[in-house]
Amino acid sequence: MSQAFYQNYRLGVVGGGQLGRMLIQSAIDYNIDISVLDPDPNAPCRSLASEFTQGKLTDFETLYEFGKRCDLVTIEIENVNTDALKKLRDEGVKVFPQPEIIELIQDKRIQKQFYADNDIPTADFILTEDATEVRENASFLPAVNKLGKEGYDGRGVQIIREEKDLEKAFDAPGLLEKLVDFDTEISVIVARNEKGETKAFPAVELSYHPEHNLVEFLFAPAKISAEVERKAEELALRVIDTLGMVGLLAVEMFVTKDGDVLVNEVAPRPHNSGHQTIEANVTSQYEQHLSAIVGAPLGDTKAITPSVMVNLLGEDGHQGLAKCEGLDSVMAMDGVKTHLYGKKITKPFRKMGHVTLIGSDTEALKSDARRVKETLKIVSE
Amino acid sequence: MSQAFYQNYRLGVVGGGQLGRMLIQSAIDYNIDISVLDPDPNAPCRSLASEFTQGKLTDFETLYEFGKRCDLVTIEIENVNTDALKKLRDEGVKVFPQPEIIELIQDKRIQKQFYADNDIPTADFILTEDATEVRENASFLPAVNKLGKEGYDGRGVQIIREEKDLEKAFDAPGLLEKLVDFDTEISVIVARNEKGETKAFPAVELSYHPEHNLVEFLFAPAKISAEVERKAEELALRVIDTLGMVGLLAVEMFVTKDGDVLVNEVAPRPHNSGHQTIEANVTSQYEQHLSAIVGAPLGDTKAITPSVMVNLLGEDGHQGLAKCEGLDSVMAMDGVKTHLYGKKITKPFRKMGHVTLIGSDTEALKSDARRVKETLKIVSE
Repeated sequence: MSQAFYQNYRLGVVGGGQLGRMLIQSAIDYNIDISVLDPDPNAPCRSLASEFTQGKLTDFETLYEFGKRCDLVTIEIENVNTDALKKLRDEGVKVFPQPEIIELIQDKRIQKQFYADNDIPTADFILTEDATEVRENASFLPAVNKLGKEGYDGRGVQIIREEKDLEKAFDAPGLLEKLVDFDTEISVIVARNEKGETKAFPAVELSYHPEHNLVEFLFAPAKISAEVERKAEELALRVIDTLGMVGLLAVEMFVTKDGDVLVNEVAPRPHNSGHQTIEANVTSQYEQHLSAIVGAPLGDTKAITPSVMVNLLGEDGHQGLAKCEGLDSVMAMDGVKTHLYGKKITKPFRKMGHVTLIGSDTEALKSDARRVKETLKIVSE
Repeated sequence: MSQAFYQNYRLGVVGGGQLGRMLIQSAIDYNIDISVLDPDPNAPCRSLASEFTQGKLTDFETLYEFGKRCDLVTIEIENVNTDALKKLRDEGVKVFPQPEIIELIQDKRIQKQFYADNDIPTADFILTEDATEVRENASFLPAVNKLGKEGYDGRGVQIIREEKDLEKAFDAPGLLEKLVDFDTEISVIVARNEKGETKAFPAVELSYHPEHNLVEFLFAPAKISAEVERKAEELALRVIDTLGMVGLLAVEMFVTKDGDVLVNEVAPRPHNSGHQTIEANVTSQYEQHLSAIVGAPLGDTKAITPSVMVNLLGEDGHQGLAKCEGLDSVMAMDGVKTHLYGKKITKPFRKMGHVTLIGSDTEALKSDARRVKETLKIVSE
């Protein structure tokens, strides 16, 4: 592998958002040339990639032509043309995660069925073809109704607590999932390389925005027992091993009030629940993803310090050229690191950046995180 | 300031080597557009800068034209045309560090005289005009003979222990400095912004390659008493305050066997003695430099963990297209992070990368660092 790091090794990243941006930021240390494909000419990766191609990720020709020039292709978003990835793979380009796994994860119905087929604990569910089928299952409520495809960042997910909520049910293939009465929502990020070596990051706890189904705060370590931590790690590793996936897999899980751990859903790439690893762990999730896909040994996942991550979402009611309010006050705080994603345009709840807080006192971290949330606002000019 | 982070703020970095590269890596989080000027078309910053200009840093017109398009100009190497920087500053471009301070530091004779004039403790010295004057000062031996200008990375410095060594004395304006019988060589990196706010990083200990006058290992924290630490920090802050400099200043110091602290020399930019701050401190030296020059509050300099940094120098006897040997073994070690600088060509003792080791057991860190040094080699193909 080491050879690749010094001369003319080209990695193609499909998608040029913040995850790609932080991936490039890490890849600088690996000395890899990176090409990026994204439909947005102002994508966060635009000026950082050594080559940037503007084009649709779901278009076969575009993705195939892009990938042909690379030694290795990876993704930073799942909604891509997997037929193009398969053709590239068949023609000798390495593609990680493997196209079949991306397909499985693209469709929450297939993903969910995969858990059921492999005895991976997950919430009970019913596959539904349309709104009528959802409405026929009133006895299954309270439930979460999820679109099979194209849900992302809180879109394509609705909570259906009682019969009257059934009116709004999506009218497309989806699944109805029993609402889990959970204690905690956690995420364990695992990685696997071609040799089958695996490593897990310590579990983190996720706190979602009550309305927008977006991670608002992340706490590391998660406040769970050693027993639950062990179960969660084992489960996450079992998912990646069963998939036989090469790359990074974020496994989001529910910890029930009885201490059971259920897989909610997975993402086969760096994930919002791993941003804090940049500062708080020996190896970041981005470095780990790179190591896994280029075939290098996986890095040490140990946490160096407790941390809290705050997503900076575009303020509600603001759309247009972005500016920060309160950034100076936040930068002056101890233990604080701000990451801005370089998006020129803000929209309500758009992910515009994140802040990581590190320190030894977890209660102080939480209160500082709330202060960051209240102080730092992304608004329009 | 926060405004600048979101729309069209252009920072020009004079020099495109590894320090510029790591500066860009940090600047990604600040959302600043970066232009780089470097004479080498394959400079480490080449593909990362949003604009790259190939040109000579010491040429007035080249640097002036480059800087005119920027809002702010900084340096990552001292050997630049300061007249161009002054003209830019006079025409309204912010230039930090200030051109006059770069000039003072460019010439070790003026730098040394500055310490003497401001009661900043430093080793005794004699200014010399040529080799003849050096030879007239045999009574001053053992001493270090330094060229006034253009010494860098161990060049322009010679140890003259006894009279017979006087033969090799440089024949150009320089200075003869009493050889200090020191206990430890340390560095304290300080920063100052336009408001005059200052912060110091904890002292680190430097271990030089016995022949090549290049940092081989760096240990953080330095093994010094709290009293010496306090003195060193105070002294470093006094230097930057006396200079009135805006930006980052690395202050290299000797700790004598009597516990005195003497300033050796300074660098007005991110420095080899601060690489470990990327992993081991809340704020890295690169982020701190950016915050200081853009006028943001200075970041928290606290160390999160002990660390050791190992410079990866090109192997002796190897020149040509670079490759790594032993990288996989090093990447598999716990607590290790490798940074490669993207230089295609290796030369004996060229700085090709560095490795930071983090962990709580400082003795284990030192032994791991020696293992890294023995295992990881940059050779030619």
